[in-house]
Amino acid sequence: MSQKSIMEYETVALDDDNSALEIIDQTKLPGETRLISLHTGKEIWDAIYLLKVRGAPAIGVAAAFGMYLLAKQIKEQDFELFYQAFLQQKEYLNSARPTAVNLSWALNRMDKVCIENREKPVEQIKELLRAESVAMKEEDIQVCKAIGEYGLTLVKPGDGILTHCNAGQLATCKYGTATAPIYLGQERGYHFRVYADETRPLLQGARLTAYELYASGVDVTLLCDNMSATVMRNGWVNAVFVGCDRVAANGDTANKIGTSVVATVAKRYHVPVYICAPTSTIDMNTLTGEDIVIEQRPAHEVTQMWYEKPMAPEGVKVFNPAFDVTDHDLIAGIVTEYGIAREPYTESLREIFAKKNSTD
Amino acid sequence: MSQKSIMEYETVALDDDNSALEIIDQTKLPGETRLISLHTGKEIWDAIYLLKVRGAPAIGVAAAFGMYLLAKQIKEQDFELFYQAFLQQKEYLNSARPTAVNLSWALNRMDKVCIENREKPVEQIKELLRAESVAMKEEDIQVCKAIGEYGLTLVKPGDGILTHCNAGQLATCKYGTATAPIYLGQERGYHFRVYADETRPLLQGARLTAYELYASGVDVTLLCDNMSATVMRNGWVNAVFVGCDRVAANGDTANKIGTSVVATVAKRYHVPVYICAPTSTIDMNTLTGEDIVIEQRPAHEVTQMWYEKPMAPEGVKVFNPAFDVTDHDLIAGIVTEYGIAREPYTESLREIFAKKNSTD
Repeated sequence: MSQKSIMEYETVALDDDNSALEIIDQTKLPGETRLISLHTGKEIWDAIYLLKVRGAPAIGVAAAFGMYLLAKQIKEQDFELFYQAFLQQKEYLNSARPTAVNLSWALNRMDKVCIENREKPVEQIKELLRAESVAMKEEDIQVCKAIGEYGLTLVKPGDGILTHCNAGQLATCKYGTATAPIYLGQERGYHFRVYADETRPLLQGARLTAYELYASGVDVTLLCDNMSATVMRNGWVNAVFVGCDRVAANGDTANKIGTSVVATVAKRYHVPVYICAPTSTIDMNTLTGEDIVIEQRPAHEVTQMWYEKPMAPEGVKVFNPAFDVTDHDLIAGIVTEYGIAREPYTESLREIFAKKNSTD
Repeated sequence: MSQKSIMEYETVALDDDNSALEIIDQTKLPGETRLISLHTGKEIWDAIYLLKVRGAPAIGVAAAFGMYLLAKQIKEQDFELFYQAFLQQKEYLNSARPTAVNLSWALNRMDKVCIENREKPVEQIKELLRAESVAMKEEDIQVCKAIGEYGLTLVKPGDGILTHCNAGQLATCKYGTATAPIYLGQERGYHFRVYADETRPLLQGARLTAYELYASGVDVTLLCDNMSATVMRNGWVNAVFVGCDRVAANGDTANKIGTSVVATVAKRYHVPVYICAPTSTIDMNTLTGEDIVIEQRPAHEVTQMWYEKPMAPEGVKVFNPAFDVTDHDLIAGIVTEYGIAREPYTESLREIFAKKNSTD
């Protein structure tokens, strides 16, 4: 097998004749790499609802492609009738995961294309919708790539990198966020040694991160979440890269449950922790981590899911928070597509946004 | 259901007419509480080998009871012939888990009873073997109880206690080590809130600790290993109690993998970590944690065991150390049956042994 530079399958794609949304069915991973083609609204809705495609950026782009395909199927040539059908489909797709911000964000962006071009022929609007969805995918790739470039300045060839959960290619259109420095380094022969936490209870690290890095030829070693201290004590880890769900104005971040454990251990062993965060995840209206509400998830994810038989006594209480807050003092840098923010974050994050606003 | 003070089943017992070894088959937990009676050498060997009984103290006492039962079955009345058969059975039982120190320690103690009483009639020796095995169980219970009494001085009613892995009643004859303060407190109406780490990859926390505490009516909440920072950040944990596998002369300890992660997080949140260690686990000839060799275990425990289907890509590298070293600066106290050792440990552990030697 030849050296691969990045996973050869795309997480989300429009097929060659613009008639289907193609995705990797992530519910079949890691056992089977199955590419599926989605045509109807029901197929696309199911794929999002059933987590066949997951990860905020990937969901957004899948919804945009889906919206384009569904718009194309509308027969009406009168704008008002076309737009009425468009809105119906939009609402339907939006209901697949109502709390996923990227989903409604992507659909609203497609909606805006209709509104702003309402004077144009419907067939031309359809073409503009295609172009918009393709642009959104391209933007996602560029954001990830920029994060990767900045991240790559923080490590050197041969370094050991630890990551938690999946902020990888499977959560975006390409490169991922936390994995972007790894993939770019891989393309440039950096030969990183990557440690992937399995990430209980949903095992995204084992099922997705280990899968995509291994499939890409990266030197990856799978760990249980409680082994981070051992690999760091052994001197095997030079940096931690993780994704995030929200960054507060003071640099506190909400990330997959266990990230703050990794960050605390990393501090003891003087390993820098970098949060890879597209600016879309930075919320300057959230002042500190204390203001972030943490989603609680059901007990069966801990006690029964994946297992042949229940692994805990029936009826025992379970605490299953989906995220935790990593305090900014544990974070060496927040890597965005506009540069790396460092302490004091209130200031450096503001500078990141200034740079963004002057570029956009 | 009435309030229970401690799990009603004994981990290891001799039945009423001294004809069988009775144990809880721990391989059936937590789904089924099955008590089994073992009579033959093969049955007893299998139970130890297949981990139906596990935990160093419990294995030692099970082997002692087993040795008594097998000795009783020897028909010879001539000491030399009796002792020859005894040694055969001893070697056989000892081969069940060759690296378990408590197994050979217990069998050697039974052997010594034969040797020291060789002038007595064989039937009398058999009775002395019974008495010795019963004494060993009683001693184990007393050691655990003493650890519990000392441990109980470190907490107050209503406290939150976090524990990792299973150093519970199921690993000993009663009370456990890390759980001893919990059970004694339960008997006295302390109403602790206990947090049990599930302890990947073998899930001893979910399968065994959550089981035995829940069955005993203790207020126990199961967690994934990566949630310790969240419960401590929430202020829910007042103390960590864990068992250990070896204590070095400087107070460094080898414990179940992940213990040093818990201890590092606890330090950040100012939660004291107490290691519950019978003096038999303190090895003054091991100078520091650096001198402790850590057992590596097979990949399938992380990627496949317990699961309906493999949870990681086939062939991916896995790192699976069974233990980690917790540095003594992370430890607030080492709780033994002769008192609590504190920094500087080199001195306080020596005092513990002086007390032990003056008592024995």
